[in-house]
Amino acid sequence: MRHFEEQLDQLRKRLLEMSGLVEFAIYSSAVALAERDEAQARHVLDNESRINNMQIEIDELATRLLALEQPVARDLRFITAAIKINSDLERMGDLAVNIAERSISLARTLAVRPLIDVPHLADLAESMVRKALDAFVKGDAELARSVLVSDDAVDELRDAMYHELVSYMQKDPAAVRQSVDLMFVAHDLERIADHATNIAEVALYLVEGIDVRHHAEVRK
Amino acid sequence: MRHFEEQLDQLRKRLLEMSGLVEFAIYSSAVALAERDEAQARHVLDNESRINNMQIEIDELATRLLALEQPVARDLRFITAAIKINSDLERMGDLAVNIAERSISLARTLAVRPLIDVPHLADLAESMVRKALDAFVKGDAELARSVLVSDDAVDELRDAMYHELVSYMQKDPAAVRQSVDLMFVAHDLERIADHATNIAEVALYLVEGIDVRHHAEVRK
Repeated sequence: MRHFEEQLDQLRKRLLEMSGLVEFAIYSSAVALAERDEAQARHVLDNESRINNMQIEIDELATRLLALEQPVARDLRFITAAIKINSDLERMGDLAVNIAERSISLARTLAVRPLIDVPHLADLAESMVRKALDAFVKGDAELARSVLVSDDAVDELRDAMYHELVSYMQKDPAAVRQSVDLMFVAHDLERIADHATNIAEVALYLVEGIDVRHHAEVRK
Repeated sequence: MRHFEEQLDQLRKRLLEMSGLVEFAIYSSAVALAERDEAQARHVLDNESRINNMQIEIDELATRLLALEQPVARDLRFITAAIKINSDLERMGDLAVNIAERSISLARTLAVRPLIDVPHLADLAESMVRKALDAFVKGDAELARSVLVSDDAVDELRDAMYHELVSYMQKDPAAVRQSVDLMFVAHDLERIADHATNIAEVALYLVEGIDVRHHAEVRK
């Protein structure tokens, strides 16, 4: 039993580590974009395999716990939650890689008003990831709810960016290619925020036992 | 034990049902787009809640099986695989909803060469979903591998569409808004194909016990 507690704690720690890597990837890809820093972008690309390896490791740890310890009730819910969160984190890592790749292309060609609200959106998304993981690890329902609220702000910011970028493209054909890149960056940041929202929902489910996933509409 | 087998079979059936709903949503959203059929698009939006409810139901069924039956070895792997696949299917349902929403906006404004290769891309994505689920349910490794191969064709088709759409936008400011919509449709279809690829990878893992997820690069 003691051994099982240690393994659960290990799982919790690995998820936090994974989350740290993912947050750093999001941060770095946003900096790479804002500062046209190709080296920073390459750093994100180089780190992708660490995130991928950690995903497999966490999956194996969780599955082993299910197989060997046959947990029930709360522990079982925690472990299945960890499996879901792990998958959300890995997807966020992929999205940070997408942003880093676009930042390389943008660093070479940028002509339009360079960043619009990308740094603001990136900050927001990154802080949602951190809060969602904290909420999960600490079982903090209030913190989880604050993530759900931020998701609406992200959607609004993204919509505003889309409108602005469409009008750039309509005015200036030379701005099309870069505007498309920025549009996908905004899209990817919004998806990162979505994954953070998923994690917050899982955290809430774990603390309060209510499934808020598809009642999300009610929040709006 | 007999009861457990029945429950596993139930889980398998529910996943196939869910997959049927999702395939139909993808198909309908592509038809809505191709035929400017707003009623068809609204049908996809109306069906979203069925997919969402089924996701929760399958999750609960899988978690109950883990809790009450404490399965080991192959059964355990099957159930954790079902949890992952369920989440991929639900995301595909969301993406079909995105496409249906864009098809409504496109039906009202379409001016550029209307569809480019959207129907072809949609067909490809839909057939990948079907094959991936079949591969999982039947434990057919060869079928799973054929899905991984199709993913490259999807990426190529999407890239070609991007280039074509960028050049439309550069030539004609009036085409910007619709081209952006079509670009996101292509993006969503490519993501549907990605989720189908995830499912095929899970299926392969289940049959052969090898984890191909992040060795995916090797395939290319």
